[in-house]
Amino acid sequence: MAESKRVCIVGSGNWGSAIAKIVGKNAKEFPHFEERVTMYVYEEMVDGKKLTEIINETHENVRYLPGHKLPPNVVAVPDVVEAAKDADILIFVVPHQFIKTLCKQMAGKIKATAVGISLIKGFDIAEGGGIELISHIINKLLNIPVSVLMGANLAHEVADEKFCETTIGCRDKALGPIFRDLIQTDYFRVVVVDDVEAVEMCGALKNIVACGAGFVDGMDSGDNTKAAVIRLGLMEMIKFGQVFYPGTKLSTFFESCGVADLITSCYGGRNRRVSEAFVKANKTIKELEAEMLNGQKLQGPITAEEVNHMLKAKGMEDRFPLFTAIHKICTGEIQPKNLVDCIRHHPEHIKCKL
Amino acid sequence: MAESKRVCIVGSGNWGSAIAKIVGKNAKEFPHFEERVTMYVYEEMVDGKKLTEIINETHENVRYLPGHKLPPNVVAVPDVVEAAKDADILIFVVPHQFIKTLCKQMAGKIKATAVGISLIKGFDIAEGGGIELISHIINKLLNIPVSVLMGANLAHEVADEKFCETTIGCRDKALGPIFRDLIQTDYFRVVVVDDVEAVEMCGALKNIVACGAGFVDGMDSGDNTKAAVIRLGLMEMIKFGQVFYPGTKLSTFFESCGVADLITSCYGGRNRRVSEAFVKANKTIKELEAEMLNGQKLQGPITAEEVNHMLKAKGMEDRFPLFTAIHKICTGEIQPKNLVDCIRHHPEHIKCKL
Repeated sequence: MAESKRVCIVGSGNWGSAIAKIVGKNAKEFPHFEERVTMYVYEEMVDGKKLTEIINETHENVRYLPGHKLPPNVVAVPDVVEAAKDADILIFVVPHQFIKTLCKQMAGKIKATAVGISLIKGFDIAEGGGIELISHIINKLLNIPVSVLMGANLAHEVADEKFCETTIGCRDKALGPIFRDLIQTDYFRVVVVDDVEAVEMCGALKNIVACGAGFVDGMDSGDNTKAAVIRLGLMEMIKFGQVFYPGTKLSTFFESCGVADLITSCYGGRNRRVSEAFVKANKTIKELEAEMLNGQKLQGPITAEEVNHMLKAKGMEDRFPLFTAIHKICTGEIQPKNLVDCIRHHPEHIKCKL
Repeated sequence: MAESKRVCIVGSGNWGSAIAKIVGKNAKEFPHFEERVTMYVYEEMVDGKKLTEIINETHENVRYLPGHKLPPNVVAVPDVVEAAKDADILIFVVPHQFIKTLCKQMAGKIKATAVGISLIKGFDIAEGGGIELISHIINKLLNIPVSVLMGANLAHEVADEKFCETTIGCRDKALGPIFRDLIQTDYFRVVVVDDVEAVEMCGALKNIVACGAGFVDGMDSGDNTKAAVIRLGLMEMIKFGQVFYPGTKLSTFFESCGVADLITSCYGGRNRRVSEAFVKANKTIKELEAEMLNGQKLQGPITAEEVNHMLKAKGMEDRFPLFTAIHKICTGEIQPKNLVDCIRHHPEHIKCKL
């Protein structure tokens, strides 16, 4: 049997800390992992004390996941190069705007044989506009293979050990079971599929659909209309995969990363919530972000814009009328009340499928 | 071109009346349908007057769909044999407990070349227990081909002309477009697929899953758990099709009859609502039906029982742990709190899918 593998978690927000709780426990239990897990923590002061020191003394991320103990074998490290240098497995879980800077710091200073797994939802903007997958960015900057983990996984519920599922996208048959051992628990169930790009894409595109669901809620259009918008959104997600990542499998969209994450985003989720308010309050998305999100940016409208950039460049807006309509509503080009007009003659409705 | 087709709607509840509104309009517009559409109405007295007379004078089903005008070319007929005798297309939309009696009355008294389409959700009980599809019952009793229509279609929202989608399952390539012309409108969008049994099955099985969603809501288990239960329910629906109706297609579950109807049932829907109360109120399903449903029976628990009968007989309960757990919770064999224990090691989680 190979040497036991060292694990580093790059990130320590609420999702990173919830995963650290799981990974720390599994690393201690399974002999094929080193017990000590490093966690890169962006250093900040909390009540006059360094956050890394608080975590290492109290085993609690008091800033981002208060009330939950991390396993003592998870060690907070304020320097990402130091945290990652000996790792065989790097788990990326930072807000996506920080990923390039972090990878540039790490480049050339990690094991050449290391592998990565990204838990980061959302796209990055490609040069010249359009989208780039976060896993591809990490792969390019660090020259390591990168898998992904996505699913209907609200961090605080995972930390509370409430039952849920997740999806790992991993192309390496030997590596899939290792990731599963590292991340699966009795309450956090992992399914591994090889359709990596589709898994990652789902995590970003669902935020566009959630905006559509929010508009429908804002207009009180009813359950039938909402179901239709969610379903057509799912069909556009699938088609987006077929067009831009040929070879994506239909079955992947039935995993937690697909239909399950989409559903929770379209019923709970802040994209839905702000989009509902957008219709009812007659304010701009920017104003509502400022009021409702405490400085954070909404993912859905940005993703809709990036996706629209690609679709427009390729003359494909007509094939994705829901994505297109949602983008135009977010920018104020059309009114929410025009949403249904845009999808009434959706390509999905054009022909009998017999 | 063939002679224009005569249409009869067998049934006049709120769903039957909402469909009559659509079908009446289309029959008048398209030359390949006879303008006059008959609608079998179970005769009853409303304020001392016959319901058929009220409908034919006021063009409103004041009993089951008040506030909506039916097209004047829809003619209410109190005798099912009279209503159906010249019809080329029979649209079945009655509560499923009445279908056998009605078909027996009609047998031998309809056109030999007639075709049927069933809008009836739910299974019938097969001889010896287990399930029988309603379309198969109609087919056997009337000896005509029977298609189906299912989707996320709350009747009152359809009657209000709120946008929605529906799915027609029809194996006959020539007939599919005719059904679509008859039933599609600008606000009621039809997709025709040939996977008839899967379409019909979805309409019944989703009620089992909705009970599971209700239990999860009753226990305040959170969004992740609910998403997992809905997704695992969908996976069991798919597997049920593969096992009992070989040849069902994965793509059918992405249609309105599948994922969309499932979602609305698991968020709205009375199966969800009563199941939530079942957990919170500590009363039996029977007691809650009496209190909450005004004499109607809940479909989910009955369907769960019929399905369980089949699964048990074939030794397949382990392969459908969610359906099985929901049945056992409904009958009081296990507690709602045991739901997650039953699905923690679901077959979906057992193996890497690489």
